Amino acid sequence: MKICIIGSGMMGSALAFPARENGNEVVLVGTPLDREIIFECKKTNQHLKFDRVFPQGIEYYQFEEWKQAVVGADFIICGVSSFGVDWFLENVLVEKECSVPVLSVTKGLVDLPDGTLISYPEYWERKLAERNVSREICAIGGPCTSYELVYHDQTEVAFCGKNKKTLEMMKKALATSYYHISLTNDVVGLESAVALKNGYALGIALTIGLCERENGVDCGLHYNSQAGAFYQATREMKKLLQMQGATENCECIGFGDLYVTVYGGRTRKIGILLGRGISYDDAVAMLNGVTLESLVVAKRVARAIKIRASRGEVQLKDFPLLMHVDGVICEGKDAQLPWESFTFEDIME
Amino acid sequence: MKICIIGSGMMGSALAFPARENGNEVVLVGTPLDREIIFECKKTNQHLKFDRVFPQGIEYYQFEEWKQAVVGADFIICGVSSFGVDWFLENVLVEKECSVPVLSVTKGLVDLPDGTLISYPEYWERKLAERNVSREICAIGGPCTSYELVYHDQTEVAFCGKNKKTLEMMKKALATSYYHISLTNDVVGLESAVALKNGYALGIALTIGLCERENGVDCGLHYNSQAGAFYQATREMKKLLQMQGATENCECIGFGDLYVTVYGGRTRKIGILLGRGISYDDAVAMLNGVTLESLVVAKRVARAIKIRASRGEVQLKDFPLLMHVDGVICEGKDAQLPWESFTFEDIME
Repeated sequence: MKICIIGSGMMGSALAFPARENGNEVVLVGTPLDREIIFECKKTNQHLKFDRVFPQGIEYYQFEEWKQAVVGADFIICGVSSFGVDWFLENVLVEKECSVPVLSVTKGLVDLPDGTLISYPEYWERKLAERNVSREICAIGGPCTSYELVYHDQTEVAFCGKNKKTLEMMKKALATSYYHISLTNDVVGLESAVALKNGYALGIALTIGLCERENGVDCGLHYNSQAGAFYQATREMKKLLQMQGATENCECIGFGDLYVTVYGGRTRKIGILLGRGISYDDAVAMLNGVTLESLVVAKRVARAIKIRASRGEVQLKDFPLLMHVDGVICEGKDAQLPWESFTFEDIME
Repeated sequence: MKICIIGSGMMGSALAFPARENGNEVVLVGTPLDREIIFECKKTNQHLKFDRVFPQGIEYYQFEEWKQAVVGADFIICGVSSFGVDWFLENVLVEKECSVPVLSVTKGLVDLPDGTLISYPEYWERKLAERNVSREICAIGGPCTSYELVYHDQTEVAFCGKNKKTLEMMKKALATSYYHISLTNDVVGLESAVALKNGYALGIALTIGLCERENGVDCGLHYNSQAGAFYQATREMKKLLQMQGATENCECIGFGDLYVTVYGGRTRKIGILLGRGISYDDAVAMLNGVTLESLVVAKRVARAIKIRASRGEVQLKDFPLLMHVDGVICEGKDAQLPWESFTFEDIME
């Protein structure tokens, strides 16, 4: 098979490893933001952010050449971040050259004015329908950090989409001895599970910083409080996912993704800084002003839940951790968690 | 109130902190195995395994004096390990001095010959009923390591029992600014959730050792594989807990407990050793021959599931991680996880 990856960020690029190691023809196309990465890949066969070289035989293209690169591809992998969703729509999805199925790694949800949360595949399909364009868009969810995939760490993910044959074709192309792929038709469930985990991972990471504030920065990790927040996160995720109609398998993918997100990357870092008592603006500045996708998702979900609560469809008291995280990142609230609000009383007289 | 703790292991002793800090009268009674601990407590007001002294005013007793120590107590906390369950039955529960309610910290399940898994409170109640003795037995479950409780780390737990008033009395006695207590009538659900997590925590810890085997002992932590095993653990725990009739709140307490168990204590240590490829016997020897409660529970649950599978009530293929852990600890199977068996296909034509 031939696979065309568009977007050479870390996750899109990491998928070139199983794709190429499986013997497929692989082309990696940068977006206009990826110029330097593609330039470097052409020169050294290595991504600037990975410490392993790519498998031999991958071809690299700048975005101007994408229509030439995509010729003959069996499917396209969309590797843009959530900030590139509209760019990908306008520059790739609407074009006639993008007629093969798309597999998206972009994680996130879009909240509509009525509090409905839709996945990016659905968002794109709605926008394309307005232009009478039809595309088959699948997506990847699950606990997978790109640099560990590159390292051939054992990884479990799921692909979601509407069409069995397409999903099976994509699985066949990418499944390796270390990349294990489940398949599901539950697009909104999978995409919700892996998007929702963001705000909750931040909430759990707050407890690490809070312990440091209490006991000093070198106090070591305190797992009781992390686990207490993890427990509450799973309670709230279950409720939200039931609202979204998610299957139990997708719920569990979300729990695995929550676990990995507490340990990897920038969501953890900003959570620890906020937990220490550093203000949101200062924390973002300390992380070089990077806007975090995970915080955008957390805000969108909180906004949607508040709208639904105002209509009496849900109760905000069922989501104390989400509301707390929203308060910390949007209103400068102190990070100390509302622990007692995480307790329940399931008892009868 | 007056609280009598019998069993001065780490968890029983740790509960003396919130109990006493709340202003209750607290007596801590050692079992015959705890002689040295009580001796040391009397001398220094500190437990041998804790780095903080007890709050002032706790009284310490050797087991011979327990009938004198318990006079006037509002409830008894049972602090014995699962290996002391029958000892506690014969030496405390059957005695007329043990007439007040009991709150047990002992974690585990007992498998009956037909594959039914019952909680320790139910086990004790059955044994006592044979002697026409009636006791009110409640239990604690949830993500709580003793040394972090001593450290006043924020902690979320649940108390289970049949009687609302008793549970509320126990919560009032022990709830502090750092010990947060949910209440539930779902005894078998809570006790199953916190027992089941043991085998699964071992399964997740195997991945840490496996990564070390692959990449060297100083390779750092690989979270993709931990998270992949965590995802599968939650899938199997959900199925088992649904079989046990557990509530969703207890399920989430179990997920929090799974999280904390991957990080704390001996289950993690033996999992890492087994993952590295060290044999079960050698790994146990390296941990000074300590028999691990968690492994006993894992074996019992696996045995029960096999019996139920032989009757066609469940399918073993739904529990590949549990069966794998059982194979590693009982049959010397290699630790490499059956990753592909963790995938699902929820797709229609």
